[in-house]
Amino acid sequence: MLQIESEKEEKIVHDLKTLKSDIIAAFESLEPEARFERKEWDHHSGGGGEISTIRGDVFEKGAVNWSGVRGEKLPFKEEPDPFFATGVSLITHMHNPFMPTVHMNVRYIQTEKRSWFGGGYDLTPMGFEDDNDTYHFHSVAKEALGEELYERFSKDAAEYFYIKHWHKERGVGGIFFDYYNTGDFDQDYAMWKSVGSSFIEAILPIYKRKIDFPYTPEDKALQNRLRAHYVEFNLLYDRGTKFGFLSGGNPEAILCSMPPTATW
Amino acid sequence: MLQIESEKEEKIVHDLKTLKSDIIAAFESLEPEARFERKEWDHHSGGGGEISTIRGDVFEKGAVNWSGVRGEKLPFKEEPDPFFATGVSLITHMHNPFMPTVHMNVRYIQTEKRSWFGGGYDLTPMGFEDDNDTYHFHSVAKEALGEELYERFSKDAAEYFYIKHWHKERGVGGIFFDYYNTGDFDQDYAMWKSVGSSFIEAILPIYKRKIDFPYTPEDKALQNRLRAHYVEFNLLYDRGTKFGFLSGGNPEAILCSMPPTATW
Repeated sequence: MLQIESEKEEKIVHDLKTLKSDIIAAFESLEPEARFERKEWDHHSGGGGEISTIRGDVFEKGAVNWSGVRGEKLPFKEEPDPFFATGVSLITHMHNPFMPTVHMNVRYIQTEKRSWFGGGYDLTPMGFEDDNDTYHFHSVAKEALGEELYERFSKDAAEYFYIKHWHKERGVGGIFFDYYNTGDFDQDYAMWKSVGSSFIEAILPIYKRKIDFPYTPEDKALQNRLRAHYVEFNLLYDRGTKFGFLSGGNPEAILCSMPPTATW
Repeated sequence: MLQIESEKEEKIVHDLKTLKSDIIAAFESLEPEARFERKEWDHHSGGGGEISTIRGDVFEKGAVNWSGVRGEKLPFKEEPDPFFATGVSLITHMHNPFMPTVHMNVRYIQTEKRSWFGGGYDLTPMGFEDDNDTYHFHSVAKEALGEELYERFSKDAAEYFYIKHWHKERGVGGIFFDYYNTGDFDQDYAMWKSVGSSFIEAILPIYKRKIDFPYTPEDKALQNRLRAHYVEFNLLYDRGTKFGFLSGGNPEAILCSMPPTATW
């Protein structure tokens, strides 16, 4: 159980849990029957999380994870520096290879002396890029952030979601930010909330458009080969995964981003 | 193309290529029809390798890779320090879940001032451990190395092939050594050769015993779930993989250890 220690923490955790429920409801609206299953987990140094997963007719595997943990020091740090970290992260892997994988994360981290926001969302077609999808996805992000922040965060996404060994971006980009703190908490918080709240509009129309697209076993095989690159990115380069393992996180929660199947 | 610069290098490269051919012949003896396909590749800073892969009726995916590369400095090093690195590494992923995955590697690395041997082999059952297999595999290693080195190297394997986040060993162990140099090159070389040459005897009887074992779709599903842990180990913890990516190696060659399929 997470002990809430301030009104600020309470507000942020409340907003994150609301965001989580909204996204789950939006995703479930695409599923004829399957529903997310929720599982709570505890973190060894305080707090824990709730991971909700679905395996349905549309979502081959989807996971939405909320976590709120405390610890004595952040990974990569030498000195003790008690922290509070909370966030929502999600990933989808669709049955239909024409429906791209999407990833979203919003997080807030607070140490004794500093606090910052991080997050973003990015789209990864699995073999079948569609310029309309890409345009829509980026347009929603731009609308939510404004021109200036969008330019900066989408550039950062292109740099961050890059698979070095294949010399290619992981997908068609999106937005990414980290260590965000302008000194004006309310303004930063509003920006961060708009990232979360715009996410459903960024992805749902894409999924609705593609849900009945016919596909062949060859299309599926291509999707599974490209999912392997997603696995490689997450285990080799992703900061969230590293942070999770180094801080002794729950491997089931950390690895919930893995695709249902990948082939090499 | 690799430029050979000394008789020592020539001898080592010759022995490694012979070992590679012997292993390929031994593995092919289990396959009714399929044969290894060879592909050469170049390294950006000099040398290259030959990767041989098979996808057959018995080996769902097998890869044997010889490489011999030169570079200006080893990864993890700050200062320039020209090196020569050559080795054979292999991995198997079997159709039959009762046939364990096996991994073997022998390598020789030489810088201006130092040289050393490394390598080993280890066995990973994918859901179906068999004490007879484990006993046989370790017995052959002990026979090849003698009691003392076997004790040391098998302890090192248990430590090295450990999946931290699942708090378990990758498989049932084997032998592992690195930075091996006693000062007596001929003796070290003989030890190292005996690791390579004992490998076929370590694995082939196990494969022959299991080749016709009946298995169910549930057995196959368990194998694929456990292969995911193998992927996690290789991308998160394996030194060879890190060395490969950091030294700008060929991703196809580095990732040839990945299973044909893994499920999460």
